[in-house]
Amino acid sequence: MTDSRKSVFSSPLDLHNIRITDDFWIRQTELVRTVVIPYQWEMLNDRVEGAAPSYCIHNFRCAAHLMKEKRENKDFKEPVFTYRGFEVLPEDPENPKDDEFYGFLFQDSDLYKWIEAVGYSLISHPDSELEALADGAIDLVASAQHDSGYLDTYYIINGMDKIFTNLRDNHELYCFGHLCEAAVSYYKATGKDKLLRCACRFADMIDDYFGPDKCNGYPGHEIAEMALIRLYEVTGCERYLKLAAFFIDERGKQPYYFDKEHEVPKGAPLIRYHYHQAHIPVREQAEPVGHAVRAVYLYSGMADMARITGDEELLAACRRIWSGIVNEKLYITGGIGGTHIGESFSYPYDLPNDTAYAETCASIGLIFFAGRMLRICPLPSFTDVMELALYNTVLSGMALDGRSFFYVNPLEVSPLACMRDERKFHVKPVRQKWFGCACCPPNISRLLSSLAAYAYTESDDTLYMHLYIGADITKHVGGVDVRVVTAYDAEIGKLSAAFHMAESEELTFAVRLPSWCSDVKVPDITGKDVTVRNGYMYISGFYTDGDTVELSVPASPMIIEADKRVREDERCVAVMRGPVCYCIEEADNGKELHNLYIEEDVELREETAEICGQAVTVIKANGYRACNTGEDKVFSGLYHKYKGSKFKETELTFIPYHMWANRGEGEMRVFVNVL
Amino acid sequence: MTDSRKSVFSSPLDLHNIRITDDFWIRQTELVRTVVIPYQWEMLNDRVEGAAPSYCIHNFRCAAHLMKEKRENKDFKEPVFTYRGFEVLPEDPENPKDDEFYGFLFQDSDLYKWIEAVGYSLISHPDSELEALADGAIDLVASAQHDSGYLDTYYIINGMDKIFTNLRDNHELYCFGHLCEAAVSYYKATGKDKLLRCACRFADMIDDYFGPDKCNGYPGHEIAEMALIRLYEVTGCERYLKLAAFFIDERGKQPYYFDKEHEVPKGAPLIRYHYHQAHIPVREQAEPVGHAVRAVYLYSGMADMARITGDEELLAACRRIWSGIVNEKLYITGGIGGTHIGESFSYPYDLPNDTAYAETCASIGLIFFAGRMLRICPLPSFTDVMELALYNTVLSGMALDGRSFFYVNPLEVSPLACMRDERKFHVKPVRQKWFGCACCPPNISRLLSSLAAYAYTESDDTLYMHLYIGADITKHVGGVDVRVVTAYDAEIGKLSAAFHMAESEELTFAVRLPSWCSDVKVPDITGKDVTVRNGYMYISGFYTDGDTVELSVPASPMIIEADKRVREDERCVAVMRGPVCYCIEEADNGKELHNLYIEEDVELREETAEICGQAVTVIKANGYRACNTGEDKVFSGLYHKYKGSKFKETELTFIPYHMWANRGEGEMRVFVNVL
Repeated sequence: MTDSRKSVFSSPLDLHNIRITDDFWIRQTELVRTVVIPYQWEMLNDRVEGAAPSYCIHNFRCAAHLMKEKRENKDFKEPVFTYRGFEVLPEDPENPKDDEFYGFLFQDSDLYKWIEAVGYSLISHPDSELEALADGAIDLVASAQHDSGYLDTYYIINGMDKIFTNLRDNHELYCFGHLCEAAVSYYKATGKDKLLRCACRFADMIDDYFGPDKCNGYPGHEIAEMALIRLYEVTGCERYLKLAAFFIDERGKQPYYFDKEHEVPKGAPLIRYHYHQAHIPVREQAEPVGHAVRAVYLYSGMADMARITGDEELLAACRRIWSGIVNEKLYITGGIGGTHIGESFSYPYDLPNDTAYAETCASIGLIFFAGRMLRICPLPSFTDVMELALYNTVLSGMALDGRSFFYVNPLEVSPLACMRDERKFHVKPVRQKWFGCACCPPNISRLLSSLAAYAYTESDDTLYMHLYIGADITKHVGGVDVRVVTAYDAEIGKLSAAFHMAESEELTFAVRLPSWCSDVKVPDITGKDVTVRNGYMYISGFYTDGDTVELSVPASPMIIEADKRVREDERCVAVMRGPVCYCIEEADNGKELHNLYIEEDVELREETAEICGQAVTVIKANGYRACNTGEDKVFSGLYHKYKGSKFKETELTFIPYHMWANRGEGEMRVFVNVL
Repeated sequence: MTDSRKSVFSSPLDLHNIRITDDFWIRQTELVRTVVIPYQWEMLNDRVEGAAPSYCIHNFRCAAHLMKEKRENKDFKEPVFTYRGFEVLPEDPENPKDDEFYGFLFQDSDLYKWIEAVGYSLISHPDSELEALADGAIDLVASAQHDSGYLDTYYIINGMDKIFTNLRDNHELYCFGHLCEAAVSYYKATGKDKLLRCACRFADMIDDYFGPDKCNGYPGHEIAEMALIRLYEVTGCERYLKLAAFFIDERGKQPYYFDKEHEVPKGAPLIRYHYHQAHIPVREQAEPVGHAVRAVYLYSGMADMARITGDEELLAACRRIWSGIVNEKLYITGGIGGTHIGESFSYPYDLPNDTAYAETCASIGLIFFAGRMLRICPLPSFTDVMELALYNTVLSGMALDGRSFFYVNPLEVSPLACMRDERKFHVKPVRQKWFGCACCPPNISRLLSSLAAYAYTESDDTLYMHLYIGADITKHVGGVDVRVVTAYDAEIGKLSAAFHMAESEELTFAVRLPSWCSDVKVPDITGKDVTVRNGYMYISGFYTDGDTVELSVPASPMIIEADKRVREDERCVAVMRGPVCYCIEEADNGKELHNLYIEEDVELREETAEICGQAVTVIKANGYRACNTGEDKVFSGLYHKYKGSKFKETELTFIPYHMWANRGEGEMRVFVNVL
């Protein structure tokens, strides 16, 4: 990598150097810190009444005990592996056995995600009690690690003789990825490297096992790719980067590795490789396909690899795939995954509102991917979509009280359909306490706790403000510490940045111009050079203590229409305010939301209201309710002669999508008919 | 049953006394006679190239051989049953074994349906060659019958020790039902009773096995109920009626019989009883639920039972269920079954167009149910719906050349979705040659071959014309043969009936007034009493040779709207002409049919056109195509600011729904957006 390219890229700030000050986001991150993280710890320990046990800590204890036995007892015999299923439940739920693995076979990852979130949280809010808890958890993880470096409690408990024999389904490399993420986060936060050493030992063991002339498998559920790159960036150890490159480039090669593991049924469709993004080599891929979470985790790893190695071919694949997502397969809520079958991307422009999968984790992974592309090239396409996902599908994943969660985030819900239509059984009309497969809630925790890393990045002399989230930042430029205090007031649409420093310094403050605001005026700032390039405004020059930059970026409500190829959105519109997607809910608008229409040239009126004690800007609009005429029935009571439609005037109330389903069970719709 | 009630009911005419003369329907029934029936025979014998073998005749041969062995070889040992699956395929497809059962375990029913259709066909078109073929097939069936009277080749071949141990899934009583239907049809057509005797022997054996204080099971797939009643009506043997009553009334009683056969998984949902209409006793049922074909077969049996026994409670249940179907769960095409999951009714008003199941067989069963209700009480509700099903979903089931078939009849199709969206894999954009589970094509044959029985019924002194299908009818009244020649010309909307007889006779000609025509004028016919009652016009009096009745019943094109509770049809309309539902197809209207709109106060123009060489009235209407503005993109290429819709004028061409997919693969839509 040459130095010139290096300076083009930007990096997240060290989280010690940035503190979010935005009220809205403080509320969210505080919810994670004070409610979700403690709640998750209880969940990991199976102490939440009414929620199914996770068995996560149980499994680590059980593996640790076994490892102790192995070391201390010379008669110890390794268990011989027998497959016990994808999810194992105790025969007697009241008395789980002390020496058995329970739960989904990727259960370990829940603890890693929790540690990762704790790491981020400790930076902004040092908390010795929480740190002691995490240290204890890390001790437990370390004591469960196999002498070989291997670390996955499912196999340690059930028999190590079959490790890495079912990469397609059994998630060992997925758990490993989350271990790395946790280790790096905790090390960066606390300087403690115990977990990092565990991760490196496991990584070394994996690297000994996989590679050219060794096992040429790759993860069934991606994440190890980007996790290994983080491990490389922290340790500087090249073998981790090479291993990540191996995993990325082996995927999709023929003969298919997964076919070596599993007997291929006759006439098996190619589609099952698509599920794993393994149908063709990743460099040849253009259409985002398969399991959406796996997909965006892979693409994130590819983007990191392209950045670090300067691999233009890989970067081109990332760009094509990004374009495929955002131009053909993206919900207006920033959700991805149009079908619950395989929790997957559907075909281009197939974006059903009522059967959407749009998993919370998939939008989190989309933010990972966007954030990594942004580091390579700051373009609003990445930022706009990252912001959509964050403000809508990610936030929607968590209740306003932080105690219940959505896995699936549809854009239209009828509780009756969820109950009576098996095709919609994946859609829940109210958030759930927890899930057997609890990937989403801890993913929300780790994302929101590290939000500052997505909102801002920096290069040597430039501070990028990608998201309009006020923060207090310290940036080192030319030996000087520059403090930048930013704020965005959505009510008046004012963005400001104040600069504080001991001595003047030359730097660039780069602000993204969001696509949802078309009339940002280029300010005239004395002594600064202001240029707009590719959707970012670059304000460069010598900054002096007390300098301020102010921009008017109003987030006015607006009506959005989808591309005409999106069948499900024909003659429907969505209401947005900045990046916040709005919806109509039964609580405000009554039942049978499909009968409601918004007026074509309607005025959108902003009003302040309260939802569950939280102040919020709602939007009111004139509308109509289509009514049955009830006349001239033909054939049966269901059909009648059409003599024009009959409408009653009504007022529609739109609330932010992420706040829906906080006032009991009811219908919801994002796309509303337009008249 | 009292005599007074008897005279209220009507019966189908003896098919020897009626000949259809309507050109449109002659074309359909001739297609069945000259193409479908011979083609099916080839299918049953596994002689159609490119179609998967059915193994139907193979199985009967195999069973017959085994029975011969059993009788002639004293060392013969009965096979001991081992379950071989719901569908059995030969290990070596090139060399199926002579002594093994293959295909679906209900494969026998295909031959029975074929014999039933042949029976009807022989009445209207005596054909000694075809009759000889059928006689041979019946000989084969008879020789395959077990000494006990039992007759199901799956168990005869695989082991009789487990007969009737899996009533829920294994279709023995279903095959028995079709055997009865075939036996009655063939006996009525030819006077030959060989198959009827087989059916009776099997029925006797079943009656010995099932009943109070014996096995209290009932069919998993209904049909035996109505078949036993037909057997009773032909033989006069009361035990068959009682057995049917037993099957009807045992269903849904607790503890559930199917739970005695099968271990009940913990927490198993009640829904699996709904699938079999066995969740509550049938007399308590109100909502039509579960597998749609099974449901309407059951309801048909219930209606027959109510008619014969005068059971008002049972009749009330039939009425409630009928009302539930037609007022909450009926497609405008006469299709039923909103979901492919369980091939079932969905919940009320859930009538998705694109994922509809709407199985051809379900509409055929709906005609059975409607026809039976009509016999009890001639009401247009029954006739209108019967006609909808017949002209649309039933006809749609068969290609114009009679050589390919639809199983599923959606109201909206995108070939891309059928290929790429697993949720629509049940929907085919083109008709298939045959199906592994080939219930629909032979069901079309047997319905269309006996169509006259649905179009007309009679009581002592009344001839009912339910469907507007011209026919040449002989009716006996008071010792006189009255010949009635009817015709309906849809182009000019003229219905006529001419009466021929040796001497004058008093009778009533009752014509149903279809709901699709609101302006039938009551004619002034000299010497006749004309009254309109419950949607039928009764023209009574002394008829003399040469009398004619003429009615103007125009089938003008009209625009239909669904009840506002049908979410999927909001702001959409369908075009109908009489009972014929129209659709737009890609061949005439281009791609992306979801972007097309029909004008609100549009004039519908009838034009004559040709589809696959067949003359047809198509309907033209002014419309619009919604276009992308392509401006003001926000967030991504998929979304833009809404500034009103942009439309291009276009002309829409509607063709009859049943003719769709005869001109290659393309999109189709019944419900069209209205502007």
